[in-house]
Parts: sequence; structure tokens; C-alpha cells
Amino acid sequence: MIRKFRYGKPFPTDAVVKNVGQTSGMPPFFTVTEQDGGVEYRYTMEKEDCVFGLGEQMRGINKRGWHYDGYAYDDPHLTETRTSLYGAHNFIVVFGARTFGVFVDCGKRVSFDIGYTDPDELIITFADADVYFITGESVLAIVKTFRELIGQSYIPPKWAFGFGQSKWGYRCEEDIREVFRGYEEAELPLDMIYLDIDYMEEYCDFTVNRERFPDLKGLAEEFKEKGVRLIPIVDAAVKVKEGYHVYDEGVEKGYFCTDSEGKPYVVGVWPGDSVLPDVLNPEARLWFGSYYEEFLKQGIEGFWNDMNEPAIFYGQGSIDRAFQVVASKAGVNLDHETFNEVQAAFGSLANNPDDYAAMHHKAEGELISHSEVHNLYGDFLTRGAAEYFAERDPDRRYLLFSRSSYIGMHRYGGIWTGDNASWWSHLALNVKMMPSLDMCGFLFAGADLGGHAEDTTEDLMLRWLAFGIFTPLMRNHATCTARDQECYRFKDLGAFRHILSLRYRLLPYLYSEFVKCAQKGEMLFKPLCFEYPEDARARTVEDQLFWGESVMLAPVVEANAAGRYVYLPARMKLLRFTRHGVRERVMEKGEYYIDVPLDEVVVFLREGKVLPLAQPAKNVASLDDRHLTFLKFIVQTTEYTVCRDDGVTKSSLQNFETIKVQP
Amino acid sequence: MIRKFRYGKPFPTDAVVKNVGQTSGMPPFFTVTEQDGGVEYRYTMEKEDCVFGLGEQMRGINKRGWHYDGYAYDDPHLTETRTSLYGAHNFIVVFGARTFGVFVDCGKRVSFDIGYTDPDELIITFADADVYFITGESVLAIVKTFRELIGQSYIPPKWAFGFGQSKWGYRCEEDIREVFRGYEEAELPLDMIYLDIDYMEEYCDFTVNRERFPDLKGLAEEFKEKGVRLIPIVDAAVKVKEGYHVYDEGVEKGYFCTDSEGKPYVVGVWPGDSVLPDVLNPEARLWFGSYYEEFLKQGIEGFWNDMNEPAIFYGQGSIDRAFQVVASKAGVNLDHETFNEVQAAFGSLANNPDDYAAMHHKAEGELISHSEVHNLYGDFLTRGAAEYFAERDPDRRYLLFSRSSYIGMHRYGGIWTGDNASWWSHLALNVKMMPSLDMCGFLFAGADLGGHAEDTTEDLMLRWLAFGIFTPLMRNHATCTARDQECYRFKDLGAFRHILSLRYRLLPYLYSEFVKCAQKGEMLFKPLCFEYPEDARARTVEDQLFWGESVMLAPVVEANAAGRYVYLPARMKLLRFTRHGVRERVMEKGEYYIDVPLDEVVVFLREGKVLPLAQPAKNVASLDDRHLTFLKFIVQTTEYTVCRDDGVTKSSLQNFETIKVQP
Repeated sequence: MIRKFRYGKPFPTDAVVKNVGQTSGMPPFFTVTEQDGGVEYRYTMEKEDCVFGLGEQMRGINKRGWHYDGYAYDDPHLTETRTSLYGAHNFIVVFGARTFGVFVDCGKRVSFDIGYTDPDELIITFADADVYFITGESVLAIVKTFRELIGQSYIPPKWAFGFGQSKWGYRCEEDIREVFRGYEEAELPLDMIYLDIDYMEEYCDFTVNRERFPDLKGLAEEFKEKGVRLIPIVDAAVKVKEGYHVYDEGVEKGYFCTDSEGKPYVVGVWPGDSVLPDVLNPEARLWFGSYYEEFLKQGIEGFWNDMNEPAIFYGQGSIDRAFQVVASKAGVNLDHETFNEVQAAFGSLANNPDDYAAMHHKAEGELISHSEVHNLYGDFLTRGAAEYFAERDPDRRYLLFSRSSYIGMHRYGGIWTGDNASWWSHLALNVKMMPSLDMCGFLFAGADLGGHAEDTTEDLMLRWLAFGIFTPLMRNHATCTARDQECYRFKDLGAFRHILSLRYRLLPYLYSEFVKCAQKGEMLFKPLCFEYPEDARARTVEDQLFWGESVMLAPVVEANAAGRYVYLPARMKLLRFTRHGVRERVMEKGEYYIDVPLDEVVVFLREGKVLPLAQPAKNVASLDDRHLTFLKFIVQTTEYTVCRDDGVTKSSLQNFETIKVQP
Repeated sequence: MIRKFRYGKPFPTDAVVKNVGQTSGMPPFFTVTEQDGGVEYRYTMEKEDCVFGLGEQMRGINKRGWHYDGYAYDDPHLTETRTSLYGAHNFIVVFGARTFGVFVDCGKRVSFDIGYTDPDELIITFADADVYFITGESVLAIVKTFRELIGQSYIPPKWAFGFGQSKWGYRCEEDIREVFRGYEEAELPLDMIYLDIDYMEEYCDFTVNRERFPDLKGLAEEFKEKGVRLIPIVDAAVKVKEGYHVYDEGVEKGYFCTDSEGKPYVVGVWPGDSVLPDVLNPEARLWFGSYYEEFLKQGIEGFWNDMNEPAIFYGQGSIDRAFQVVASKAGVNLDHETFNEVQAAFGSLANNPDDYAAMHHKAEGELISHSEVHNLYGDFLTRGAAEYFAERDPDRRYLLFSRSSYIGMHRYGGIWTGDNASWWSHLALNVKMMPSLDMCGFLFAGADLGGHAEDTTEDLMLRWLAFGIFTPLMRNHATCTARDQECYRFKDLGAFRHILSLRYRLLPYLYSEFVKCAQKGEMLFKPLCFEYPEDARARTVEDQLFWGESVMLAPVVEANAAGRYVYLPARMKLLRFTRHGVRERVMEKGEYYIDVPLDEVVVFLREGKVLPLAQPAKNVASLDDRHLTFLKFIVQTTEYTVCRDDGVTKSSLQNFETIKVQP
């Protein structure tokens, strides 16, 4: 059951697709305090209560013991200190003495204090929001009700479930060719090569540097014939440059965010002075989306949208002040305090709330400060592209994913989880984040495998891939200063070949489970206690997940580990994927330590279930998903339903085949 | 067996105390390459080889899979990216196909690539060093041989094993009184309150701000009567200020580091323009040490030495260049590259190698660049104080510990592991670092419990204290911007009381084990595989430690955990310290999941061993260690040896009592 409570004047976020009537009175369980336009929800938790959700966030599956902000924020230092990442996903489920869900639908910052100020208090603070209070029989039932409320998750084309290689630093056509050759010569599968900002001319959106990429169309077509697609990045900010068509047109049409007087609001991003498309204006965002055509007509079918929190290096006013602060201290004996001031002058410019407050959108004819709608920016920018695609070819699926997001965007595209680092703790974070994202509808998601910033190592890369083969978006991506981490650069290529091959062998299952979960509003990745709510031990397991209907995952996320502990909440069959075949072992419910060598993948098959496997393939196009073999843990004939769509149209997504599997 | 190899012209570090003759020829196992004065040691590791050691460092007990620098470095961002911390402890033991130890004795940067560039290669790079190659029957035997080589570890007074409270931000006498009252009223034990830089006048060493601390002597005496000692900080850098006695005297005597022409080298630290005592000059360091007398005569008996890597905020030349860089970009349209340049101008000034290179020491009459001896600075500064104490009162023990250190300093003082953060991962790091520190002689060591930077939470604080009760240095310390984390500020005071009390109940054991380990060159904290070298499973256990002769620790280091997995390499007795008493359970060798509530401490008693317990006490002075009870896992009469010194003199450290314990 869903109850809706309105506070203040919420800006329409389009997060929900169902019409829910407003409830008067108070929500159950919470103490609600309204003061100066702000609202505080307070709930006293029992000792054993867990709190799940918040989508893209730091810390555990159970969010208890820290405070979090629903606030899209570009800062790549993903430490335990952080309170928000690149998206704002304000949905939680409290599980324990009472079990219920809360969605705070609000484009502004929302704060969740989940046992931080007081270990036993859950305090949600916000203003101008619709709050949806959801009850149901179980956590899974509540999630399903919420997912119905927010509408069906985006389903990309099938080839997007292949493996992609990316790096900020592929500067020219030859760099791209080298990556292709590297994978081909090492006999490693590959479906996509990503283009980061290097391909652009002066960091201008929808331009291509013709010296470094003389024939992008030719390259894209040549590679597509070989089964590899090029996926260019699109940034939010548009360079201020007269004669640059996107800038000129946007200015002429009044499609950029402005200051309070209606003049384009200039901020510093990659190209220096830039303006931001006013994506809250439906015409403006469709106009921005229509520029993707410049790539579509070159045979490109997939995109990643970046810097759309929106990321701002500096605002015009704030950088002037920074120069003044520094100039005022020249020649002064700088002690601790004054030196800090000088250091902070340029160190604290990025994503400054003052810049957000000064920037304005035109919403239904009225100027509205960006602060009021901040979290919607990445969502609406990505939606602009999706709306253009739908207009261009209503039945076709394109690959589209974004760094920033808000609930609602899950209907238009996927996300990657932003600029992580080559840290073991970020592999663990990747594992913990997947079910939280699924709760919020972001099924097509994945982390930068191997880590974006900093230098990776071969063992970290292998362990990360051994989890990444299960995430719908599977991309190896690194920043320009990081050590090269394309899979072919490592020593034990056999191990990489084995693990990447397994992705393709599992792809019919992954794809079928993904499509079914999207259509039914279910989770692809589930914490153990979502399925075993009565099992107290399952509640504290933070590094194992159910994956689709048949499999439980238990990835190794620690350096120099020879294996790991696993808790089986029920009888299961261990499946050990070695280079030489699959080894199986039935295990009873209980606690185990299992060996997991670097070049093996261990998963658990649930009782009564089967797991379809294809033959290895070098890309999705050459994958034979008609001839599947099945790993089984069954005693009677069992059915498995495979998605039999054409891989690219929306209409064909209704085609399923149910296969009978004998014990 | 120890073999010594000399390369280039090593600067004398005084790390070793035994005279080891130089060996000609090549060290065993390694391929040695010498080029341009640099030396590379290369060893091909087998798959199962582990590498232990490096003292204060990031990552696991097994150091394999990353690269590390022996390089003292002040940077509080302790992420997985880091390659060095505040000390340089260049001793490793390779354990596996072959087992041996290597100590690279060198004041300059030493690099250890332990399977980073190539997963199977150990590569040590250095110049001008004595390399000690140590073999023995086992890892423990090698460590013991090394510890004999470097001399006996520092033993502080007994009261220093009590619990201390610290925070940057106790600005005045009333702040200190409030902390004392807080602990007293909450009935929480306390032995020390630390004074951070707040007590000084204008950040000048050996001064006290008389407005905020009108009578430090009176306060120190009053508190000492109540059983609580004040422990002031001493920083390395001396403010440039005419009329400030330390500066004036140092300049007059030529006791500060200079530029290449012999003029005092000015760097920016807390007070702005500062100079650094030239501690490589024995007269200069004793002179600096003699200023501690200003506190000793006020009844103070303990000190912590900070900022002695040495930490430099900026050098005079580099800050001028930074101002120039910024000025040159004023009014320019800053794109990504130029904006980075401006940001980096002030962001990259700290601890700049150029400043270190330009700064000089006077060593045996000759000017020598700081770069050549960098890692020795903190060691020799602390040694200066220790040498003064020994001159003042040869038999008396003072509390003295340092942030920066080099092997050799372990004879003069302890260390804290520097500026960590309130992160669960730093609790885990604390656990992993203790045995590595013990290998290098730093027995009196501990981390900032609860975390120095960032905001802690009650559960993190409790779990951290539940490990911190086992570390010789037990201090709760936080930075000025962090949430208050004195134990009395939390909700479940009963849990804090129970855990802190346990420290004092265990103190007779901790102290006795500590003194014995120091005297015998043994480790207080041992990884499981050091005692069970044949047990392959034990080799991968990174979060359990033997603590002294009787106990195995298995701390909980994860948020929202209800317990943890434990591997017992042998039969042991679980001891569960609850608020209501101790519960015991014998457990066979094997893998277990055990519950560990937030307010309980679980340890394991080894078969054939006993654990003495005292009654709870409010401080060390009031601890009755004559009436001990024993927890036992024995079938026959067993002996336990207790240190019966007077707690303050060196000579009394030979007094032990062996107690017979009946089953």
C-alpha cells in the first residue's frame, strides 16, 4: 500500500508514473516536525532494525550507522567520509520490528541520518517534497510496489551486455585500433570501446577532432562489422565560443541556464568558460538530445553522459574571489590558518552551493534557482537524449547511461557508479551497491571495473572482473593518469580469457533475468535476507548476493585471499568454474570457508534451479544462445524462461521461450 | 645468520647496535644490479610466498601485491593508494619457498615493489645503503635475530599503559578540566590527558599560553594526584621570531638546518616561517632535548613528538613560485589543464622533495642535503629528548613517542601510527599494522582510537576500543574539526565502562608480556602463520593475531556486524567478556562464525596457557596487580611470569615473579 504526503511546494520530478492521491494526516510510525519550511521525520529504531536502499551510496547494504545526503555530487574521493555520490536515490526500506519503505521525492538535498547522531534514531530532513510511505508483506513486496510506482526500468540493446573497454586517454584512431588489436590478439572477447573526452575538438560536445579522428564514421562502421561498437561520451557543459553551433543555437533559443537576470550563467568546466543546457525546459532538453543525431548518423548506437551533476570546476564569481584571496596574501608570513585560507581558495571552488544557487532554470515560464532542482539535472539531461531517440525511432533501443541520476531516470537509461578508484574497498563497495541500485530501479548499472583513479594490480583486476561478469554494465575504465589496465596488458592472459569468457557463457541467463526483472519490477541482485527474512544471520551478510532466480554470488574482495567465508542460508550446489571445466558440490545450509584461486569463479546454484550456459563467444553478435546447456540442482523437470527478443527493438521484448530441463 | 652488504656510502643511521662485518660478494637468492649509483635487488617469488614487515605501512599483514616506499611522509589521506606513511621501516621477511629477512638500512627513500609491476617479482631499489640479509629457522627466529641486531625496544613507565584522552582543540585549562570531569562522572578510567598544539603561545615549542593555561604546573600536579597525567605535544619546527629564546639560541649556536650556504633554511609550518633543529648534529639534538626540562620541572613526565617527518607546509622558494603561477593566470579563461595548474600551485607545496633537497644538515663538519638522510629526522629528534632524559636521570623512564620514526628509534621511544581517520578500514589497518611494527622493534605503539580525522560513530568507537585495549599505547585522539569522541559523550556508557575496565583488568598481563617481549626481542602481536608456519590456511588470516603467550585476538572490524568468522589453528578456549562476567567455551581447531555484540569482547585462550586478570581500576596508580585471578586452559600446574618492577625505573625491570597456577 502506498500513501502520499505533500510538504511545501515540490517541484515536479517525474519520478513516479502512477497517480497516487494525497493522504492527509500523518504518516505511520514517524514523528513529523515542520519548522521554517523544513520537515523532519523521526523514527526510533530497534536494535536489530536494518535500513536498506539509497541506491548509489557509500557503505554497506545495511545503511545503519552513518548519515547520507540525497545530493548529486562530483568528487572522486570515495572514502568512508562521503555522504553522497553522483546520484540521489531517496528510497529506503526499514526492515525489523516494523518493515516499511519511504521515498522522499524532492529535487533538493535530502538528508538521511540513520543512527549517526543517535545510534537508535532514523532522522530524515527535507523541504518541499512528496513523501511516499509504502507498506507490504516483505521487503521484496515493498520494493516491487515502489518499482511499480516509478515505472519500468530501461532495457538497453543486447549487445550492451557485452564487455567494454574504456580509458580517458585514447587520444586518436590509432589508440582505438591498438585496443582492438590487443583484445583480438589475446583472444579476449570485446563488444565496445569507449571514447572519453579525448575525441572532441576543444572539449566541445558533438564535435570530433578531425586530425586525431579523421573518419569516425568509417572507423565505427569498420569496427561494428567486427562486432565492436564505439561509445562516445557526451558532457553536460557546452563551451562558450561564438561560431560553435551548439553554443550559438542554445544562446539564440534561450536554452541555457541563466543568472537571476536571464543571462547565460557561465561556469568553468573542461573547456573553461561553459554554459549548461536548461534541461528542465522540455524543449531545451529535446534540443540537446537532438544533437546525438550527429553520432547516430555515423553509425554510433551508444552513449555515456558525464559531468551532469552538473559538475562545475568553478563559478565565475567564485574564481574571481579565489584570485583575490590569494593576491591578498602574497608576501605575508603564512601561518597555519592563513596558509589554509590560501590553499582552500582554489581547493574549494568545485560544485559550490553558491554557484548552484545563482544559476537558474526556466520552469513553466518562471526562473527557478538550480538549488531547488539540483538532483534532477543528470536525470533530465539523459532523458533529453532518450526522448530524442524515442522520437527518432520509437521501437529501437540505444545504449545510454549516465553518471548523475535521480529516480525516474531509470526508465530512460542506465548508470555507472562514477569515478571510483583501484582500491579493494571499492570492489567491495561495488558488490554492496548493486542491490541498493536495483531497489531504486537502476538495473542497468555497473562500476568502473579495475578502478577508475589510481593504479590497479593484476590480482585486483581479476577479482573485480570475477564480480563484474555479473553486472549488467560491464566496463573496464580508467583515468588518464592511471596505469594501463586493458585486460591484454596483464600476465596471466589465460585467467582473463577464462573469466571474460564466462561472462559470455552466462549472458543468456543474465540477459533473460535482466529483462524479466525489469518487466516485473524485481531485483536482479538481492541481499540474502530479502529472500530469508527470518534468518537473523542472513541479515548481516554484506558480501553475498542472489543473482537472478538461480544463483548466489560470493565474490572475493580482499587482497592476497586464497578464498573466503560463505554463509549458505539453505542447501545449494557450489559451482566452481575452472579453466578446465565446472566442478560441482552439494553443500548443506551453514558456514563454510571455500578456496577461490585467482583464476576461478565460484557461485552457488539454488536448490530446484537451473543455470543455462552458452558456449564462449568473442562478442554478443557471435554468441549462440540457441544451444544452451544447463547446470542443474533439481530432482524433477524444471522450466527456465529465456528472453528470445531480437536484441534491439522494444516490441520484441515480449518474446520468451520456456525450456523444460530434465534432472 | 646475518650477512651485511654495503653499497655506495651509507650515512650512519645508528639503526643497528651489533657490529656485523661486511660480506663481500652477492647476497643469496637475489639478482643484484648496480647502475648509476642505484642498486636493484630482484627476487622471483613463488605463488604461495608471503612478504611480511615494513612496520608502519598501508595494506595487509602480507604486503604482496603493491609497491611501498621507505619514506617518512606527512599526508593524512591514508587510502589504499598510499605507498608510505609517517615512518620508514625497511625490514621485510619473505616466507615461502625460501624464508629470509632483508633490512635495507638507508636514510634515503627505499622502494619495495612486492608484486606490483609483476605479480611474481620482488624488487627492492635503493642507493647508499647497508643491506642486512638474515636467515634462520623460521620467521620468528629471523625476527628475533633482527631484533637483536637493532637492540632492545623502549619500555615506557607503567602508567603509560593506561588509557589516554586527546584532541586537537583542548584550548584552555577549563577544556582539560571538562575532560577530566567527563571521565570521572561517567566512571570511566583515565590515566592521561594529552595537550595538542593549542597549549602553546603562537605555536612556539616549549612555551605555554599563560592566558589559557595560567598555571600548567599547578594543573599538572593537581591532576597527577588524582592519577591523571598531562602529556604535551612537541613539534619539530621552531618559529622564526627574534626574542623567542629557542630560536635565538639555536641561531646563535648554528643548530638549525641551513641552505647550501649555511643560512637557516626557512620553511612554513604551524607558526608560518620556521626553522628545523639540525638533529643529525648530536650537540644540536641534545640541545633541543634539553628544552623538555621546561616541562619536566613542571611535573610533566610524558611527551609526544609531532611533525617530525619533518612536515613542511611550504618552502620559501616554492610558495613564491605558487603565488607567481596563480598571479599569471588571473583573468585567463581557465580550461581543465590551466585550472589544474592553478589548483596544484598551492595544493602540491607540502613536503616537496625540492625543499628537502635544498635544506642541509651539518654532519661531521660537512653540509649534507636533507634528501640524503630524510628518514632519520623524526628518529634523531626523538632520540635527542631521550638522550637528555638519560643524562638527567639515567634510571628513570619517561613516556616519549613520535609520529615519524626510523628503525633504531624503537630504542628511544614509541610511536603512534599517525593521522588516521574515523573509518572502519582504518580500524582494520590498525589490526594489520601491529605485528609489522613489532617485527621492526616498535612495541610501544598504537593508533588514534576512534580515528583522528573525520567524524566517528558510537559503534566504530566501541569496536575500535575493543581492539585498542590490547595495544600498548591506548589513546583516543581526534582532530579539531572532528565530532567530539571522548568516551563519556556516547550513549551506552555501560559498554564503554565495560571495555575500558577490561583494559585495566588485562594490564598486568599486557605489561608483563610487553616487558618480556622487549627484553627477549620477541613480538607482542603475531600473525597466526608465524606460530603455525605449516598451516596454509593460517597464512591468509589477516584479522586475527596472537597477543602475548596466551591469547589470540579476533576483533570485529566491520560496521553493522553481529559477529565475525574466526579460524582456530588449534584447540582453544573462547573467553567472552560480557558486562556480567566471563563466559568460556572450549573450541576445536577449525572455522567458526561467532557472535560478538557491540558491548562484548571475545578472545581465545591457547591450550596450556593462563591469563591473569586484575580487578577493574580507575587508573594504573590504583590498580591492584598483586591479587590476580587466572583464566585457564590447562590440565596441569602451569607457571605465569609477572613483571614486578616499580613502574618507573629501568633497573627494576629485572624483577619478575613466577606464579604457579593450578588447573
